[in-house]
Amino acid sequence: MQRRKFLKAAGVGTVAAAAFPMPAIAQSNPQIKWRLTSSFPKSLDTIYGAAEVFSKAVAEATDNAFQVQVFAAGELIPGLQAADAVSNGTVEMCHTAPYYYVGKDPTFAFGTAVPFGINSRMQNGWRYYGGGNELMNEFYKKFNLFGMPGGNTGAQMGGWFRKEIKTVEDFKGLKMRIGGFAGQVIAKLGAVPQQIAGGDIYPALEKGTIDAAEWVGPYDDEKLGFYKVAPYYYYPGWWEGGAMLEFFVNTAKWAELPKHYQSLVLTAAGLANVHMQAKYDAVNPAALKRLASSGAILKPFPNEVMEACFNSANQLYDETMAKNGDFKKVYEALKAYRADQYLWFQISEYTFDTFMMIQQRKKTL
Amino acid sequence: MQRRKFLKAAGVGTVAAAAFPMPAIAQSNPQIKWRLTSSFPKSLDTIYGAAEVFSKAVAEATDNAFQVQVFAAGELIPGLQAADAVSNGTVEMCHTAPYYYVGKDPTFAFGTAVPFGINSRMQNGWRYYGGGNELMNEFYKKFNLFGMPGGNTGAQMGGWFRKEIKTVEDFKGLKMRIGGFAGQVIAKLGAVPQQIAGGDIYPALEKGTIDAAEWVGPYDDEKLGFYKVAPYYYYPGWWEGGAMLEFFVNTAKWAELPKHYQSLVLTAAGLANVHMQAKYDAVNPAALKRLASSGAILKPFPNEVMEACFNSANQLYDETMAKNGDFKKVYEALKAYRADQYLWFQISEYTFDTFMMIQQRKKTL
Repeated sequence: MQRRKFLKAAGVGTVAAAAFPMPAIAQSNPQIKWRLTSSFPKSLDTIYGAAEVFSKAVAEATDNAFQVQVFAAGELIPGLQAADAVSNGTVEMCHTAPYYYVGKDPTFAFGTAVPFGINSRMQNGWRYYGGGNELMNEFYKKFNLFGMPGGNTGAQMGGWFRKEIKTVEDFKGLKMRIGGFAGQVIAKLGAVPQQIAGGDIYPALEKGTIDAAEWVGPYDDEKLGFYKVAPYYYYPGWWEGGAMLEFFVNTAKWAELPKHYQSLVLTAAGLANVHMQAKYDAVNPAALKRLASSGAILKPFPNEVMEACFNSANQLYDETMAKNGDFKKVYEALKAYRADQYLWFQISEYTFDTFMMIQQRKKTL
Repeated sequence: MQRRKFLKAAGVGTVAAAAFPMPAIAQSNPQIKWRLTSSFPKSLDTIYGAAEVFSKAVAEATDNAFQVQVFAAGELIPGLQAADAVSNGTVEMCHTAPYYYVGKDPTFAFGTAVPFGINSRMQNGWRYYGGGNELMNEFYKKFNLFGMPGGNTGAQMGGWFRKEIKTVEDFKGLKMRIGGFAGQVIAKLGAVPQQIAGGDIYPALEKGTIDAAEWVGPYDDEKLGFYKVAPYYYYPGWWEGGAMLEFFVNTAKWAELPKHYQSLVLTAAGLANVHMQAKYDAVNPAALKRLASSGAILKPFPNEVMEACFNSANQLYDETMAKNGDFKKVYEALKAYRADQYLWFQISEYTFDTFMMIQQRKKTL
């Protein structure tokens, strides 16, 4: 309190700054207040919580000089317009899933996940050390956005269905809430995709406006209550094998930020990134067990369905690349990276996990 | 420069602090210099680099007011004594693998990885949101250490062997460099484990002082040159399915640190944690391909060997729990967590990865 009063009295950063060395010190942590709009409701504490982890880390490290106030979806801005609000400067930053904006440009999909893309760990490798951050920011720049990885859900579940999916034919006419680019993949198989924000899915599924819906995984899905109205819980969510969240900052606001605050923002985003995945991983198993005991019927998508979706996705990639240079550039980079990653991951990582899963089934763990 | 001169002249934090509100502002980022000793040589840029990622994040966010100077293994302190130097206050902090200190207490092993433990993502879930950080710090406190997750290698390779491992019998008399608690597991099978710091392994293997050696995975192992002297490259490294590194801070130094610097240290450690795993994941595939084309012969451990090691590990857990209350407390917590994790990971994550690996083998990726 005293400190802020003093800052005001001293006219820090204006007249006094020229006269004494003193204000230069006070400026080392200038008072800055930003607003961050989240695409998620507070009730989804893991995904919404990533923005809070970020905000807390920034405030604490600067002794509350740099404050980023987090607003839930709808408080300032509707959930699916978070990036627009950053793009036009209404708020300084947001926490969102870039694939919500595939309507503007399908290249946004790579910021979250694309069908049959890469898993959570591969996403981090790609973004931080595989050229992914550079490629995505080259693209985001067109929308006045600077992006940073801000959490991951891991491989999502395939969602909740009122009826069983036995063959590809069962997608025909199916109205399904599905995130991002995947909607176009299932549309090729005859489904009718819908983009609906997290908080609005349950009523649509309950009323029968939609026949199926996917959100994230056990912990969130249990909260949203889907098991009450659609019993079949399919996996895997092949359209988001590692769905990444993003912190977007308005590029002009980013350029104005003192260098050491820029660095802190990147560091705090890294913390939020690792924490969000860690929290989902810690809380999902118990939720899965509760869902199963509440009557959810776990089903893997039949292999025929997986193959058909894979082929449909590859057709869509080809069509989209033919029309969109940005999409082509990012997809080709990701494709090369993906093949090598799946070569490597099947060696030690997969063999270790497989052995352990066999033990889990034998109840020897 | 001007700023530091001024700080000196004003006697910040001593006499002046009591008289005016001004120095309180200057104190917001007090000048602090710490030393961090790494257990790793600079040449292993991924694992050593995690300490640099940490140090850079701390320095940048404070405009260089808080500097943590990183020293490679041997510059100040030998690689395997890093935690001792923090424990006795020789340096403020270190970056190390806690399982190097199992000779003091086997409970240290849980800070890195235990045989047939949990994978990298599960480690983060356990440490940040599964009670792991609290449990480990309760234990570390006895050694004047405060620990934070500081990177992960992912599931390691099983190492380099001069001769094939066809049955459990092949472990008899085998002199092997192996990290942490796993040495005791293979000792039960008749092997002679050795603990040797990273930089010293190659000469031992070349001279025939040892018959086999494991380090981390393709990227590091290639640098260390093992493929030149031991052709069989086994997987998985069942003793480190997700080997975590740790930043240790001396508890007294930690208590002296201003609260906002404490927060920044935790945040920067989180960044280093996610970056180290990301970098290994990004660089390992190309290294694996180079090793294979240099003549490395990739081999999975036979299932019979895996089962024998699993049983041997479980015997060792029982024996160690009977003797050591700390070990028992942590192992029981980890065991319950592990079973639930492998239940959940085999649903969506594993099914997605499996489908993608099949495509990789079919060359359709």
